[in-house]
Amino acid sequence: MTGDQKQGTVCIFGTGDFGRSLGLRLLQAGYEVVFGSRDPKNNSLVPQGSKVMAHAEAAQMAQVIFMAVHRNHYQFLTSLTSSLEGKVLVDVSNNLKMGQYPQSNAEYLSSLVPGASVVKGFNTVSAWALQSGALDASRQVLVCGDDPKAKQAVVDIAHSLGLTAQDRGSLRAAGELEDIPLQLFPLWRLPLWVAAGLTALLFLYLLIHYVIYAYVEDGKDSFYRVMISLPNKLFAIVSLIMLALCYLPSSLAAILQLYHGTKYKRFPDWLDRWMLSRKQLGLVALAFGVLHVLCVFVKPIAYSFMHSQDTDVIQQIRENVTEPFDNTEAWRSDAYKSLGVLGFSMFLLLGITSLPSVSNTLNWREFRFVQSKLGHLTLVLCTAHCFLYGWDKFLQPSRYKWWTPPPYMVALVVPCVVLVLKLVLITPCIDHRVTRIRQGWQRPRKGSGGGHTTVSTGKATSL
Amino acid sequence: MTGDQKQGTVCIFGTGDFGRSLGLRLLQAGYEVVFGSRDPKNNSLVPQGSKVMAHAEAAQMAQVIFMAVHRNHYQFLTSLTSSLEGKVLVDVSNNLKMGQYPQSNAEYLSSLVPGASVVKGFNTVSAWALQSGALDASRQVLVCGDDPKAKQAVVDIAHSLGLTAQDRGSLRAAGELEDIPLQLFPLWRLPLWVAAGLTALLFLYLLIHYVIYAYVEDGKDSFYRVMISLPNKLFAIVSLIMLALCYLPSSLAAILQLYHGTKYKRFPDWLDRWMLSRKQLGLVALAFGVLHVLCVFVKPIAYSFMHSQDTDVIQQIRENVTEPFDNTEAWRSDAYKSLGVLGFSMFLLLGITSLPSVSNTLNWREFRFVQSKLGHLTLVLCTAHCFLYGWDKFLQPSRYKWWTPPPYMVALVVPCVVLVLKLVLITPCIDHRVTRIRQGWQRPRKGSGGGHTTVSTGKATSL
Amino acid sequence: MTGDQKQGTVCIFGTGDFGRSLGLRLLQAGYEVVFGSRDPKNNSLVPQGSKVMAHAEAAQMAQVIFMAVHRNHYQFLTSLTSSLEGKVLVDVSNNLKMGQYPQSNAEYLSSLVPGASVVKGFNTVSAWALQSGALDASRQVLVCGDDPKAKQAVVDIAHSLGLTAQDRGSLRAAGELEDIPLQLFPLWRLPLWVAAGLTALLFLYLLIHYVIYAYVEDGKDSFYRVMISLPNKLFAIVSLIMLALCYLPSSLAAILQLYHGTKYKRFPDWLDRWMLSRKQLGLVALAFGVLHVLCVFVKPIAYSFMHSQDTDVIQQIRENVTEPFDNTEAWRSDAYKSLGVLGFSMFLLLGITSLPSVSNTLNWREFRFVQSKLGHLTLVLCTAHCFLYGWDKFLQPSRYKWWTPPPYMVALVVPCVVLVLKLVLITPCIDHRVTRIRQGWQRPRKGSGGGHTTVSTGKATSL
Repeated sequence: MTGDQKQGTVCIFGTGDFGRSLGLRLLQAGYEVVFGSRDPKNNSLVPQGSKVMAHAEAAQMAQVIFMAVHRNHYQFLTSLTSSLEGKVLVDVSNNLKMGQYPQSNAEYLSSLVPGASVVKGFNTVSAWALQSGALDASRQVLVCGDDPKAKQAVVDIAHSLGLTAQDRGSLRAAGELEDIPLQLFPLWRLPLWVAAGLTALLFLYLLIHYVIYAYVEDGKDSFYRVMISLPNKLFAIVSLIMLALCYLPSSLAAILQLYHGTKYKRFPDWLDRWMLSRKQLGLVALAFGVLHVLCVFVKPIAYSFMHSQDTDVIQQIRENVTEPFDNTEAWRSDAYKSLGVLGFSMFLLLGITSLPSVSNTLNWREFRFVQSKLGHLTLVLCTAHCFLYGWDKFLQPSRYKWWTPPPYMVALVVPCVVLVLKLVLITPCIDHRVTRIRQGWQRPRKGSGGGHTTVSTGKATSL
Repeated sequence: MTGDQKQGTVCIFGTGDFGRSLGLRLLQAGYEVVFGSRDPKNNSLVPQGSKVMAHAEAAQMAQVIFMAVHRNHYQFLTSLTSSLEGKVLVDVSNNLKMGQYPQSNAEYLSSLVPGASVVKGFNTVSAWALQSGALDASRQVLVCGDDPKAKQAVVDIAHSLGLTAQDRGSLRAAGELEDIPLQLFPLWRLPLWVAAGLTALLFLYLLIHYVIYAYVEDGKDSFYRVMISLPNKLFAIVSLIMLALCYLPSSLAAILQLYHGTKYKRFPDWLDRWMLSRKQLGLVALAFGVLHVLCVFVKPIAYSFMHSQDTDVIQQIRENVTEPFDNTEAWRSDAYKSLGVLGFSMFLLLGITSLPSVSNTLNWREFRFVQSKLGHLTLVLCTAHCFLYGWDKFLQPSRYKWWTPPPYMVALVVPCVVLVLKLVLITPCIDHRVTRIRQGWQRPRKGSGGGHTTVSTGKATSL
Repeated sequence: MTGDQKQGTVCIFGTGDFGRSLGLRLLQAGYEVVFGSRDPKNNSLVPQGSKVMAHAEAAQMAQVIFMAVHRNHYQFLTSLTSSLEGKVLVDVSNNLKMGQYPQSNAEYLSSLVPGASVVKGFNTVSAWALQSGALDASRQVLVCGDDPKAKQAVVDIAHSLGLTAQDRGSLRAAGELEDIPLQLFPLWRLPLWVAAGLTALLFLYLLIHYVIYAYVEDGKDSFYRVMISLPNKLFAIVSLIMLALCYLPSSLAAILQLYHGTKYKRFPDWLDRWMLSRKQLGLVALAFGVLHVLCVFVKPIAYSFMHSQDTDVIQQIRENVTEPFDNTEAWRSDAYKSLGVLGFSMFLLLGITSLPSVSNTLNWREFRFVQSKLGHLTLVLCTAHCFLYGWDKFLQPSRYKWWTPPPYMVALVVPCVVLVLKLVLITPCIDHRVTRIRQGWQRPRKGSGGGHTTVSTGKATSL
């Protein structure tokens, strides 16, 4: 008897894609499946082994009923109120756009059939994922509802289908759950906008500096450089600045905490948002880094590079001179490439450890070690790469075209600020104070009588 | 009392690798473990903390008995029928090859001991994984069986060992479960055969076109090109064609749906199989893309490339000419490399998002955005890369060796077909019709009286 | 009623970071949350919707009480003994360093409040992970405790927070659990030390061979080579040796098994440790491989490379000779690069399949196929790459500077040993005997009367 209840009968209203895929999966997991349909004779589409009945009849067969029906069709349920009394109705519906209706579908369903326990769930799982074995896209079922027993029944079904489940609270959360499948990379927006803005601005700067200046002053047409040469520099600069932007907010947070003398004051909203999108900022920076590296490696077979090399040799012959080997240049040139190689490798390592399956295997100390220590080391290497690339160019007046500094100097501003801030913050006296604040210490104020001791478990937030 | 039952005693028949590893893991999870052995005195091998007894005695101690014994030895169980009455027998056995026996091991076990509830399970988990903490290879326990309570007991044990469990239905599914550990990349077969076929054919074509032609017509020995130069072109062409083959089936499916006027007609089997192996096709294409990129980057240090560059310069000197800078060539050459860099980066992005742990974090809309929108963009970029590489070569008669078109034209056929089909399908009037069909609309037929409205939850399958 | 108990009230002692984050997450999952605090009026920091009470009062409200309090403050619990009678106390505390106290925190807690059931758990989950939705760092809750019912209650809470749980046995394991968050890559130590040692030794060797020799004998300053040229060779050699070291222990294990005539004799400790760190050895080797590849690709734009190429051309012109195309050199040079490209691609494939989320989707046979067959193929390709690079250099006396062999010969020693051992072990007669031993066969010894047949499930350990 208990057995029957465990792997019992489940009813599905609606024979659309989602209903049929869910039915098939339930059958595979050993459930009996009954479809409720307006036209029970038309049962050619439902998976083999399931039954099709009229809605009222089907509802009698099971305790849990999945509503794989569009919200627009919910109205017909009012005629079934008595059959649905005490049943668990699982609202799996999604809308076509956010905020389409003032009330969430699940709450609307609950108001139509007040005698049933409505649970929102399974709407984040796709019909395709159910059908193809749930290897692609999300396997997590999010549920919410007001009746814990009803929720538990739905969670049990999710588990026996090989899915994971997470309880998201009462039915008031249904609207939020219905929005989830409509989101398009919400956490990536800010980093992508920052990247787009930086790319546009710096491309213009590079274009003026390297192409338009030569065209205006010398009449030289080097517009072909917009294809490889300028993007190469552009990707490098954007990547470096965005990498630095990952590590700026934690320093700003520490400064704010030092200023307020407590960690119990909320950060301003912009800082909170910035801190939450650091991972995405870093990954966009890595993408730009990869583009820079690909451009560098493609350079030796670029037409202009090969042509200028050939011209150089021919000129040496014609003028009967041989350029001597410049040892300093060899050091500088090899050193900046070497730093680039090391910096890029560390950057790749950071990227790999931020893969969900890799970061899940790290404990908190390891995760912080990689993301903070190795992250700052990467920033130091990449900044040094840029410094050595520039070398003494900042001394040569010819580099300041139209009184603008060479682009590599622009690239160095943010990273240098971040590194200097970090250096100041890790000096023993300041570091000691920040650590104490993060362990719960608060600067005493007027009016606060005595020490409010806040206990801490030694696990600071990841600043 | 309930506590005792929860983390109670488990019996294992057989002290082989699997039995011992399982026993160790069960001990670590707090279970009492009793081994049933033919020779209970030989207990030197079992993990510390467990007991070894004769089979009948051991069976008395526990409700759940793991059969870590080879199928050939099952016969001895017939003498234990009374001791095994009402017990849960977990068949963990695997065979050495598929279809070795007409009846699955678990069903055979059930026929030998009809009084026990047989559950198939744990056969997809390796002894090594159990021992080393289950970080490598699969952690998913698949179970099937006819008694839901027995299955639940096994699932509970799996969970307390830190493994996930999935119910695969009745004991009839046991044969399927026993085949799983014997499979070797079943989903990768089709894509790998396609790749191997394309590679062989195109290598021959390239060999004839670039090497044999030169040898026969001019007596020039350039067979060394089979090491880097030809593979470079070969990898690029195969990668492009296979990428296009990923996006062809969805267009074919849309055309079939338009033709039949419904989505409720099954696709032909070959199309279904093709659509299910799109991910693998794409990843094989990416692997070939990576090989192409590595070959390109290695080119500037290849002996033949450096030699031809040197010869070129020496000749210019000897003839006292300097090749002028060709601006058009600079644009074309840089542009096709730039497109290659962008196309390859997008391709890498597609590859990363198809990692299971990454695609699990995407919702359905994001997954479709990446795989469909970004996928087609990648195809457009790579096709344009190939077009610009070819440029006006199709106008030069010397390129048509032995009346065969240059290889880059061969590479462009499939991608162009796919892109043209896609362009046609996204024209508003056709797109509108496809969308309606996917939302459940059906073209009315003779004899079908009135509208059969099929409800849909707005989640179309991933075409 | 059952519903209420399921998603009931949870009490948290302590309002620090961890307590507050946990409280917020519990509220989101539908629990009632009560904080126990010394100063119940100061409730400005706790999440909205929770209550703050005095400890004794708060304890009355819930069956499960989380102790988010530092071990140093546990003493105050002795005054609450009566309120805590029969409650489940969850010890979530961590220490600052390993072995800080002789007794684990959870056991100490249990000795203070003997009437309560203490469960260790949640200490491996960070406050940050709880707050930000548990996408970063570990989502696995490890629990241990002496009372199975109490453990189950904690596991249920973990599941409803969307976390996975693993039972680690009795409270004696608490010390081990408390050490976990303090570990820093324990499995990576050995491989990293090996890599560091090899790197230091070989760098010295390369420095002497290529730079110091030239300086001492010819007075030539080529110290700039330490930036790119030497690291390039160094990374290649270390990568090859470490890749070979991954495959050496399985051959050693097979030899030991052949020698002892049984698989039931434990391997020496150093071999066990070596075998457990093979994955990490391989990944470190891959990292060195990536560095080598990056250095190779950067070479054509290195100053010294371009200068020597130019000098070469100029000299040919001056001396009025043209170096003829050397067909053998073209074959050799292209072939070793081609092998390098293939070897590196296979190596990348190995690295990708060792990502946790990828290896989880493989069955045991597939995992072994990739890690053993493809692994050995990678080793063969990389060794051949090194052989062809060296070619006939070992015949030229000038290469043996100061009677030391050229570095590429040093690099080949370990890989050749490993490959020869493997070749011997896969000869049919030896392979047959190893397979029999791994299936449980033992060489008969004096005194052992008759055949002890050990059953095996056909799943050999991964040697």
